[in-house]
This record gives sequence, C-alpha cells and structure tokens, in this order.
Amino acid sequence: MNWEELAKELTQSTPAKIVLMVIDGLGGLPVDGRTELEAARHPNLDALARESACGLTHPVYPGITPGSGPAHLALFGYDPLRYQLGRGILEALGSGVDVGPQDLVARGNFATLKAGLITDRRAGRIATAECERLCGRINAGLHPPSGYAFSLVAGKEHRFVFKASGPGLADSLTDADPQKEGKPPIPVRPLGPEAKVAADLINAFVSQVTDILKEESKANTVLMRGFSKFPAIPTMTELFKIKPAAVANYPMYKGLAKLVGMDVRSVGAETEELFRGLESCYRDFDFFYVHFKRTDSAGEDGNFEAKVRAIEEFDAFVPRLTALQPEVLVVTSDHSTPALLQGHSWHPNPFLIRSRYALPGEAARFTERECGTRGGLGRFPALQAMSLMLAHAGKLKKFGA
Amino acid sequence: MNWEELAKELTQSTPAKIVLMVIDGLGGLPVDGRTELEAARHPNLDALARESACGLTHPVYPGITPGSGPAHLALFGYDPLRYQLGRGILEALGSGVDVGPQDLVARGNFATLKAGLITDRRAGRIATAECERLCGRINAGLHPPSGYAFSLVAGKEHRFVFKASGPGLADSLTDADPQKEGKPPIPVRPLGPEAKVAADLINAFVSQVTDILKEESKANTVLMRGFSKFPAIPTMTELFKIKPAAVANYPMYKGLAKLVGMDVRSVGAETEELFRGLESCYRDFDFFYVHFKRTDSAGEDGNFEAKVRAIEEFDAFVPRLTALQPEVLVVTSDHSTPALLQGHSWHPNPFLIRSRYALPGEAARFTERECGTRGGLGRFPALQAMSLMLAHAGKLKKFGA
Repeated sequence: MNWEELAKELTQSTPAKIVLMVIDGLGGLPVDGRTELEAARHPNLDALARESACGLTHPVYPGITPGSGPAHLALFGYDPLRYQLGRGILEALGSGVDVGPQDLVARGNFATLKAGLITDRRAGRIATAECERLCGRINAGLHPPSGYAFSLVAGKEHRFVFKASGPGLADSLTDADPQKEGKPPIPVRPLGPEAKVAADLINAFVSQVTDILKEESKANTVLMRGFSKFPAIPTMTELFKIKPAAVANYPMYKGLAKLVGMDVRSVGAETEELFRGLESCYRDFDFFYVHFKRTDSAGEDGNFEAKVRAIEEFDAFVPRLTALQPEVLVVTSDHSTPALLQGHSWHPNPFLIRSRYALPGEAARFTERECGTRGGLGRFPALQAMSLMLAHAGKLKKFGA
Repeated sequence: MNWEELAKELTQSTPAKIVLMVIDGLGGLPVDGRTELEAARHPNLDALARESACGLTHPVYPGITPGSGPAHLALFGYDPLRYQLGRGILEALGSGVDVGPQDLVARGNFATLKAGLITDRRAGRIATAECERLCGRINAGLHPPSGYAFSLVAGKEHRFVFKASGPGLADSLTDADPQKEGKPPIPVRPLGPEAKVAADLINAFVSQVTDILKEESKANTVLMRGFSKFPAIPTMTELFKIKPAAVANYPMYKGLAKLVGMDVRSVGAETEELFRGLESCYRDFDFFYVHFKRTDSAGEDGNFEAKVRAIEEFDAFVPRLTALQPEVLVVTSDHSTPALLQGHSWHPNPFLIRSRYALPGEAARFTERECGTRGGLGRFPALQAMSLMLAHAGKLKKFGA
C-alpha cells in the first residue's frame, strides 16, 4: 500500500483551508558566508518560522536536481518518480499552449537541411522574431486532413511547440530527429499500431513544412521530439477530496496546476496581484497553491542581490497571507536555485508549516540552516508535504484500529 | 530485499536482553507553550535521555494517524502497510476474546428490525448491562451444528464480538450489515467457494438469533461486519530469533502481542504490577514489550493535567527498569495522543535507545522537541526501531562481505 492508496482510503473533506505558498527557487548557497535567505531581511517570514514546525524537503531524491515539473508534482502529493511528464507536454505548458484530450504536442526545432542531410540542428540559432515569422508562415500555409488541425507556437530562438489536434492521436512515437548533424532527417515511427494515425499525420506535416520553407536559407525544415498527450493523472480532488485553486502568473505553473485538476486563477506579473488573486478566491476553495517566481528568475540570472531583493519584496506581503487565517499555512519552494549555480540545484527546500496542531521547532529565522538544524521536522521528501498538510487540516482519517 | 528478508537472513540469537517500554500516546502538543512531556517533571527519563541516542518515530507514514494495531505492529518490526489487521480481529483482541486458528470473529451490533427493515442500526444504543443480558440469552439459546460453536461477548452499549469455532471457516465474506437504515437485513455472501461453509453457518446463526430475540422491542436482530480469522503473521521468533514476552494489562495490547507470538504476561492495572511483572519473567526471555496505558487514556480524555501526572507516575518507576541492566533499553510510544486533540494523532513519537553501543545525542530532556532537534537520531519510521534494537543487542550479523 503506497501513499496514493492510503490517501484515497483515508482523506476526508473538511472546511479547513490550506495555503501552499511556493517561493520558486528559494534555497541558495553562501556567497561571502551567507545564503540569499540569510542575507535578506525578512522579519515576517522569520516570525512565521518561530510559530511553525520547520524542516528541509528534497524534491525527488537527495542529490537529484529536479525540473519544475517533478518538483511541483511532489509538492502536489504525486510521486514524481511515478508520474513522469513528457518533455513535449512540459514545453507546451510552459509556453501557455492549451492542451486538451484530443491534442498531441511535441518540442520542435527549426533546422537546416542541405542535400538530404541535416547540417544544423538549430538552424543557426535564428532570432526569436525570425522564429515567430516562420511559425506564422507555416500556420497560414498548412493544409491538414479533414478533422485535424496543426499549429506551431513560437518559442525562443529556433524552438517551437507543435500541436496536432484530432481523433485517435496516440503518443507512442519515436522522435523525428536524427540527434546528430550530417545525418538525414528521420521520419516518426509508431511504437505500436495505436500510433499509426499520428505517425502518418506528422510525417505528412513535416513534408508540408519542408515544402513551405523550401526558399529559406537556414530554417528550411523542422525536427520534433518528445511527443506527448495530456497525461492521465488523477486529479487532486479524486486523490485528496479537496477543492484546489492555483494563483499564478507564469504559463508553466498554471499548466502544471491544470494538469492535476486545480482551478487556475491567472494573475498579472506584479507581486501584489498574487495576493489579491488569493484573497479574491479564498472563499471558494479549500486548497490554494500560490506561485511566486522572482526568486527563481534572479537565481537563474546568477544575481544574488536581485534574489535577496525578491525575498524581501515577498516578505512584505506575508501579513496578507496570515490575515486570511488559513488553518494550515505552508511556505516552501519547489527546488533551490542558488545564484552561485545560476540554475536549479539539488539542495533541499526550506519548509515551514504553521497550524494550531503543528509543534513549533526552535528555528529562529526562516533560512536553510535554521530549518535544517533547529526546525524540528528534519529532512524529508517533498512528497510528504501533502500528507502533513492534509493531517494538520483534519483531512486524514485514522489508519487501522 | 526488504527488511523482513534481511532480518531472516541476518538475525542471530544472543543472550543480550532488550526492553521495549511503550508509554502509550506519550507525544503531545503545547497548551500554554508546553507539551505534556515538557510540563511534566520526569528527572529519571531526562537522565536516560542524556545517556541515550534520541529521536522521533513516525508509526506508519508522516501525517498518518495510526490505530493501536498498525502502531504496535511497526514497533514489533512488522511493516504496518503490509500486515493489515481486520476490524473483527482487533475488536476481538481488544475485548479479550481468545482467538485460535479454527475461529472466525466479527464485530456485531444489536439492531432493530421492523416489518422486514432495519429501522435502527444501533438498537437505540441500549445500555451495556442490557447488551450483556442479551448476549447471555443468546449464548444459552443457540444450537450450532455438530462440531461448531458460537459465542457472543458483550461490549459497550449495542456492540459485541461474535466468534464461531469449527473446521473450514474462511473469512472471505461480505458484511451482514446494510450500512443504512430503512433497508432489509442482508445475508453474508462468500467471496469464494472456500467461504461457503462459513456463510451458511453465519446466516443460520442470524436467523436463530432473530428468533431468540423476537419478543424484544429494540434489540431484535444483529448486524455483523469485519469477519476475520487469526491472521497469518510470522512470529517474532521466526523473524528475529528472539524469545519475546509481553507485560501488559489491557486486552488489546495482550492480543497484539499474542498475534506476533509473544509469551503474554498479564498483570493488574496498577503501575507497580507492570514492573513487578517484568522483573518476575526477566530471566526467561530476551525481548520484553512492556505497555503503560495511562498516558493514552488521559490524552483521549483531553485531560492535560492527568497526562502530566501519568508521565510523572511512570517516571518514578524508571529506576526499576534500569536496575535490570538490559543491554538495550528503548523508551518510546506507539502513537501520540495530545490532550489538545483528545485522540490519536499523526505526530511522531519521542524515542530513546540506551545501550553501551548507542551514541548519545545532545537531548537534555526526554521531550518531543529535545528528541527531535538534539537527539541525534532525527526522524525515522517506527518500523526501524526493531533493527536498531537488534543491532545494539548484537543480534544482527554483517550484511555482505
């Protein structure tokens, strides 16, 4: 019996509200002896930490650096090693492409084809504006078979998201990408008879596109990989008997929330809008996932000071969170993004849970080291955050007698 | 390879003695800033903690509140998610009903039948004395087929334990309970051919009982659910090569100990009898499970002060434990019962292990927070207590070369 089976058997609906506040990429590493969290002034988070049980979570497995997909799935109570999302669906979600049950999506690259061989898999890293122009030309020039539709959504430089819509499109397909330069393009092959329709459709699409682009010098064909459908994931309501809402600005996080059946409340880029968005739907749900992005962006840029400022900016809004008086408040992150590493890392996430039934530890501040050594919860898998949240909200019945 | 397979391969018998002292429902939550353990004066436990490796255990899974059954199985070294005990067997154990391999038990309710429909599933919650009278009448009036026996053991109010004894009684049976009022009684159905004998026997029993009770106004029939046999669990001796004894007063804990093959030493309700019981069998075994109940009872009553007093009462007897000089002494709990919650909870259990070979941590007192933040062992599944105890007693050989 695993956590999911336990959850299905033991969860119960209660009026208690849970707020899961995700400060993206929060954890860091010391520069001049202090991490971003240690260098920042965040008196409100520190006060919360003193009233909370604190700890550190590892998103997938100690030492494993997660992408946003698995890191969020774990926080949402889904085993990230069980539910693996295809690269295509994550790219589509991150690009704000709406994916429904009849859709098949993939990551695409523009590429250069010369004398029957792929000579540049990235078409000379064409500019983003050029990518947008080409996608527009292709979308206007395609003639899909009756009952089907194709569309390309331009990404950065040579990248795009491919979407095919229509009946009977399975995603058990090989990539249409030779992976190495100097090789001929390879057609998509179905991995089973159920994917024959999709394979034929995609190969015809690539031919049409190559025809449309035949006058282009660099970007005159496309490569595609990571074909995926909207994955079959049980909703949070099915698993946990909660009514969840997501308050987020970036497409990736709204997409991940949609994937697990949350009601997505899209808000603008200003931090204040995040809290206004939460307040405006607070009566209507009992679980709220709120996503703050700026910490991660600053970390990805390697900008320690900007990350410190993002933390301080967030901290000023903490009283808006506590004013709602949720029965359970969790403040944590999906993964660490130390400015020192300029990217996601494997370091565990600071975590606090505040509830009438949480035993506060002895963390004096909300920092990686205080949470880790004095928080009371120790280190644990992020997947266990959900059972803790549900337990503190009275949403988990007793196991056995 | 799981723990059970490891244990079978690596355990060895040694003369070293292990005492597992379970203070039921010990963990708590703060009231006026202090938990029951923090508010109580328990200098002997504190002194033990300073000489021990300390930590916190979660019985089944973080956030999951366990019943006594799974919580104890974990402490006895059995995966509580693998060995799930039926409601009937736990009710029988808790009521002190002796269950053997030929017995089939179930939970029963007296109920009210009117014009062919169950109009009250609890027969108006008849008084316990009334329940005892009815069970007596039924036990005297039944005529089971040759080779079989039936008996009812009265519980509280409308509840009883049903026991059928005889050859060929399987427990793959549906409940004989419509679950809702206003519906007709439903017969037991066998879930496979092996349970046909049992189903016929039980349906005949219900008819006989309804006939015996036909003059009663409220309690004129019975509903039964959770049919179970004595479960097939390997004994602790088979798994761990130890000779275990249980010293306990309450039927539930004696029953659980019997389930895993312990020699059960029943003692009276006074705390002193527990320690006398342990002392009197100390020469004859190498593993001792000792169960102290009063902390849990006080917690269930929501009586913080009574729980504090129970802890202090226990503490006075700690010198009797240490005087025995067991090679390994563990003091812990099965689950937490915070007075604040008036029931079992998901909070982890304070745990200490004292042995010549245990590295003491820095816990200054035996409290939830000292064990959790300074105990040295951190948080771990209660299932791992057994391997720690066996290891410290030299009862686990090296794995691999």
